[in-house]
Amino acid sequence: MDDFRKYIADIKDKLFKYQTEKRSKTYLALNENPYPFPEKLIEEVYKLIDPYKIPTYYDSPDEELLNLLLEYINSDKLSVKNLSIGNGADEIIYYLLLMFKEMKVTIFPPTYSCYKLFAKDIGSKVISIPLKEEKIPINEIENLLNVDSIVFIPNPNNPTGHFFEDEEIEFLLNTGALVIIDEAYYEFGKRSYIDWIDEYKNLVVIRTFSKAFSLAAQRIGYLVANEDLIDAYNRIRLPFNVDYVSQLFARVALKNLEFFRKRIEEIINEREKMKKELMSLGYKISNSQGNFVFMYLDTDSKEVLTREFEKKKIAIRKFSEGLRITIGTPKQNEMVLRIFMEVKKNENSKN
Amino acid sequence: MDDFRKYIADIKDKLFKYQTEKRSKTYLALNENPYPFPEKLIEEVYKLIDPYKIPTYYDSPDEELLNLLLEYINSDKLSVKNLSIGNGADEIIYYLLLMFKEMKVTIFPPTYSCYKLFAKDIGSKVISIPLKEEKIPINEIENLLNVDSIVFIPNPNNPTGHFFEDEEIEFLLNTGALVIIDEAYYEFGKRSYIDWIDEYKNLVVIRTFSKAFSLAAQRIGYLVANEDLIDAYNRIRLPFNVDYVSQLFARVALKNLEFFRKRIEEIINEREKMKKELMSLGYKISNSQGNFVFMYLDTDSKEVLTREFEKKKIAIRKFSEGLRITIGTPKQNEMVLRIFMEVKKNENSKN
Repeated sequence: MDDFRKYIADIKDKLFKYQTEKRSKTYLALNENPYPFPEKLIEEVYKLIDPYKIPTYYDSPDEELLNLLLEYINSDKLSVKNLSIGNGADEIIYYLLLMFKEMKVTIFPPTYSCYKLFAKDIGSKVISIPLKEEKIPINEIENLLNVDSIVFIPNPNNPTGHFFEDEEIEFLLNTGALVIIDEAYYEFGKRSYIDWIDEYKNLVVIRTFSKAFSLAAQRIGYLVANEDLIDAYNRIRLPFNVDYVSQLFARVALKNLEFFRKRIEEIINEREKMKKELMSLGYKISNSQGNFVFMYLDTDSKEVLTREFEKKKIAIRKFSEGLRITIGTPKQNEMVLRIFMEVKKNENSKN
Repeated sequence: MDDFRKYIADIKDKLFKYQTEKRSKTYLALNENPYPFPEKLIEEVYKLIDPYKIPTYYDSPDEELLNLLLEYINSDKLSVKNLSIGNGADEIIYYLLLMFKEMKVTIFPPTYSCYKLFAKDIGSKVISIPLKEEKIPINEIENLLNVDSIVFIPNPNNPTGHFFEDEEIEFLLNTGALVIIDEAYYEFGKRSYIDWIDEYKNLVVIRTFSKAFSLAAQRIGYLVANEDLIDAYNRIRLPFNVDYVSQLFARVALKNLEFFRKRIEEIINEREKMKKELMSLGYKISNSQGNFVFMYLDTDSKEVLTREFEKKKIAIRKFSEGLRITIGTPKQNEMVLRIFMEVKKNENSKN
């Protein structure tokens, strides 16, 4: 017989306490979009708000959002029955873990941290197989993955930003494991596996409005999969998981694709410029297809750079393998590059 | 070794598929507020939206909402550390069940259906002890409740709307069980146990913006409890569970309390009028302190009434014990009353 206090103590002991950082002027640590959600589109949302809908338990997702999403994913083999939404992509990850909590979770670090964090919350078994030079180590996992496995794989990968190859994804799918491809950064690299869903019943694709559409604060993610899995997801999630006005934000974003496409191109251009400059400075960078760059660094260089960024009050994200820096505005990116150039200059003058 | 399809089949087999009903013109089935969220206040929310906050991972809850909530609950013994928020009160219920999933859940039907539904989703053991003439059957549960129990109790009760007595709440708390008082309808009856939280570490109070503040579509609930429990709740929930604009809606509601208080008084007046009229017609009603009325009915009368409401396209909620009808606008309430009067007239003419 256990008092509730024991469970509270257990939770405090085991679960990570997420706390948002105090924001420095230049915050490039969370792969947020550097551009505001435009005032004109906020006005468009405002005009759509029906005061009589706000007091009601409003459909999540509503029909119009589903239809716009279907149009956006642009796959002639899928229907709205292959789609559902979540309170951010994170909630979708959480519920998928909950749905398949008896299955063993396989991840390939460096990878998105929440797969492991949430799996621990839920009590699932997690197997971590590190990538080998950005490749899934197929030889090591041949006997490990099977129909009892659930695999999470961000594509492009987070934090490195590189794409996995079709052959690697195919290998994972052919083990019979349930493969969750997290396409949170899809719009910055434009390669998707949604078209494979019709063929592979064990494939789930997750996407989000947080990155390309500047909507992280509004918490809207979606998932695409076979009808049965979507039906089960809709049973396990809370019925009203995404609120009315957030759905309006998503709808307005999807009705203004041209506007966002231009912005996305700007971010892609800045990323490619940044990658080129970092390479020419001699950094080992990954071929990022996200709205961020990643450089592999030994511990010493990592520490030197981290200190410099802290001095200049620029928040970036440190990993054991290196540093990840979000692509910001051109001005912010220039500040970032200047730090790298100065550090290299100092290094060279010492040698 | 089990294929993911087995878990999907299990979920489809076990879990309820929530589907929103097609809405009839007069929808009095979900205890929604009949009044819109006012256009003036939507404009106030609109003006508060900072386009540069929308692309960011925004604090849930933010400091201003916490402070406004603290002021609203008006308890000098509590601080913001005793407060957190959820994506609707439902999400709070879900996470509390998840936090204490090893404990046995006790409910007293007729009660809010989601306690049992969510507990089943999570796999917790549920014990149902029916109320006896609206009282908690203390003799029956003396040896049942202990520190290993978690008790859910809506106050005012849903669907009946009656208040439990201090002695009943005290009895529950003194068993050592974790007692969750769901004050979703607090504003319509104005009796709260928040002031007991300082004394009872095993007491949690849940509230919502869905009912009194006309904000069901925006999904904002909050909970009040001892600091340790709130800290554990904040670890188990997703870090950004309530989005930015929904928090602005809650803030604007709390800054316009006088406006909402007038509306709440109107709903209370309509409820009291409805109760009086139903009683004078000879119906056995509960002393509802929510934004709804409940009448106890035998199966035959219930069926006759249900058919009449269906004919008039008014959606109400049927329970095994009777019918629950949300208080609507004065015009809607008159339509409701007219149906009861006609049914009684027909009954009397037959006798």
